[in-house]
Amino acid sequence: MKNSPSSAGSPSNGTYLPLSPPYLEVGERVRYSETDQMGVAHNKSYFEWFEIGRTEFCRKKGVPYRDIERRGYALVVVEAFCRYRRPLRYDDTVLIRIALQTMTPKKAVFAYELRAKGKEALIAHGYTVHIAVNKDGEVCPLPRDLIEKIREPLAD
Amino acid sequence: MKNSPSSAGSPSNGTYLPLSPPYLEVGERVRYSETDQMGVAHNKSYFEWFEIGRTEFCRKKGVPYRDIERRGYALVVVEAFCRYRRPLRYDDTVLIRIALQTMTPKKAVFAYELRAKGKEALIAHGYTVHIAVNKDGEVCPLPRDLIEKIREPLAD
Amino acid sequence: MKNSPSSAGSPSNGTYLPLSPPYLEVGERVRYSETDQMGVAHNKSYFEWFEIGRTEFCRKKGVPYRDIERRGYALVVVEAFCRYRRPLRYDDTVLIRIALQTMTPKKAVFAYELRAKGKEALIAHGYTVHIAVNKDGEVCPLPRDLIEKIREPLAD
Amino acid sequence: MKNSPSSAGSPSNGTYLPLSPPYLEVGERVRYSETDQMGVAHNKSYFEWFEIGRTEFCRKKGVPYRDIERRGYALVVVEAFCRYRRPLRYDDTVLIRIALQTMTPKKAVFAYELRAKGKEALIAHGYTVHIAVNKDGEVCPLPRDLIEKIREPLAD
Repeated sequence: MKNSPSSAGSPSNGTYLPLSPPYLEVGERVRYSETDQMGVAHNKSYFEWFEIGRTEFCRKKGVPYRDIERRGYALVVVEAFCRYRRPLRYDDTVLIRIALQTMTPKKAVFAYELRAKGKEALIAHGYTVHIAVNKDGEVCPLPRDLIEKIREPLAD
Repeated sequence: MKNSPSSAGSPSNGTYLPLSPPYLEVGERVRYSETDQMGVAHNKSYFEWFEIGRTEFCRKKGVPYRDIERRGYALVVVEAFCRYRRPLRYDDTVLIRIALQTMTPKKAVFAYELRAKGKEALIAHGYTVHIAVNKDGEVCPLPRDLIEKIREPLAD
Repeated sequence: MKNSPSSAGSPSNGTYLPLSPPYLEVGERVRYSETDQMGVAHNKSYFEWFEIGRTEFCRKKGVPYRDIERRGYALVVVEAFCRYRRPLRYDDTVLIRIALQTMTPKKAVFAYELRAKGKEALIAHGYTVHIAVNKDGEVCPLPRDLIEKIREPLAD
Repeated sequence: MKNSPSSAGSPSNGTYLPLSPPYLEVGERVRYSETDQMGVAHNKSYFEWFEIGRTEFCRKKGVPYRDIERRGYALVVVEAFCRYRRPLRYDDTVLIRIALQTMTPKKAVFAYELRAKGKEALIAHGYTVHIAVNKDGEVCPLPRDLIEKIREPLAD
């Protein structure tokens, strides 16, 4: 499985297999403040786009991330990876595709793919690994109802 | 070799082997603006610290990164990975340790380790992979003198 | 005139007069990465929202800011001011209202107002002052066609 | 008084009067991630430097800002202003000068000046206005011991 964190994490992975539907897609414009002096979006911005993707993914599943935190839980990032293929420029519309790869009571893995709107070319792909914690920051299983909602398949 | 990108990129990698000297160490305070509503440094900040590490690493080797760009070259990030172990809080001093793992004419790999000042515990570790490009963004070998300087061992 | 930079810049200005239409309005969600440990959007984010407002304002006038730079000009920020009235939280939708206050060949002043979607309350207001420069960074009048387009009134 | 917020806030203020000692001075390198596609530090970064200045100012006075928050208080930003005079570039060392202009039980005003290391020229100047709040976000006087420490003159 080529989209798994372990293969995505491999620098020798030249055979990236695109995300297949269903996935969620969110569009964002590259901000001027997100460019750097090379004239392209800075590498850290991709992790902010991944995060926007997670926010919209949870909302789509009926469990806004804000509500998860209000109930006393958090999904802290324990791993983040990005493979940059092509640059993004100011004012480009980047399409963020998000899919859930793993969802256990204490762990979630999201995969991401960025594409430029109106073009076929892959901009970047990556993943993040999250651990569920309670208000004291201790690893803690998420409530069953949250897990079930997040696991429900996205409408195609 | 446990610090290589491929093993560092593996989520099952529970047996992280710390960087061994010589490496460069740079200290940075966590900014208020780098915290998020969980009260800890946001995951994107780690990639900015990695970048600060690279800047100081190149300066230490006698090839300030600014000069590399002035000569018409750049080391673009094609891969970035971070494994977050423990949180950082506002005003903590984070020690950024940087080591060069690979340096070929067209490719560089840096490994990073973050530790909290005055504590033993590992905060995070990661790596970035870079490709050398010219002013037109084409892959292009770096000049020999730059490569040789960057490859020179750090004074212990 | 209460929305002018000089009055907006006064800390004793308790009698802020809201922007009156026509103005452009753009919506943005507060990102998780934009919050700080107080649990609210960090003060620097407001200046990024102002910038998003400018980008959309120029696009609406038919002169995408990207095109202005392609033609060899830039509107550099020489002054920025923000008055923060009420906090914004993660995932809130902020409505950015933008109006052009001044547009001469070498200078532009934009005024901004932020409101929370679905609420009446004012979140923040501010302004930025810009000077037109050429590729060498020298102050330089913008071409007449650009000025005229930017000056055209927004459709109400 | 030319350094007061009201005069600093005036766009017609061409007669800026430099901060006179005693002030605190802190050095920071411009990060690559702080540049934008114009090749200079982005306007939002200046407000992060102001914040770094405040952090070091409070530490210098013996009341680390972290401790103020631990005691249940915060100095929220209600106003921020910056006048940009000259650009900063990647890897430049910016000297942040901070002075306290006003300190009442419920309000503080800080003035800032940025200069490039090794050069005389003024890069930027500005101010921020802060209101003291308690844990519930209500305006609330700071404890007397904090105010007295912050008010103590900086060693020249």
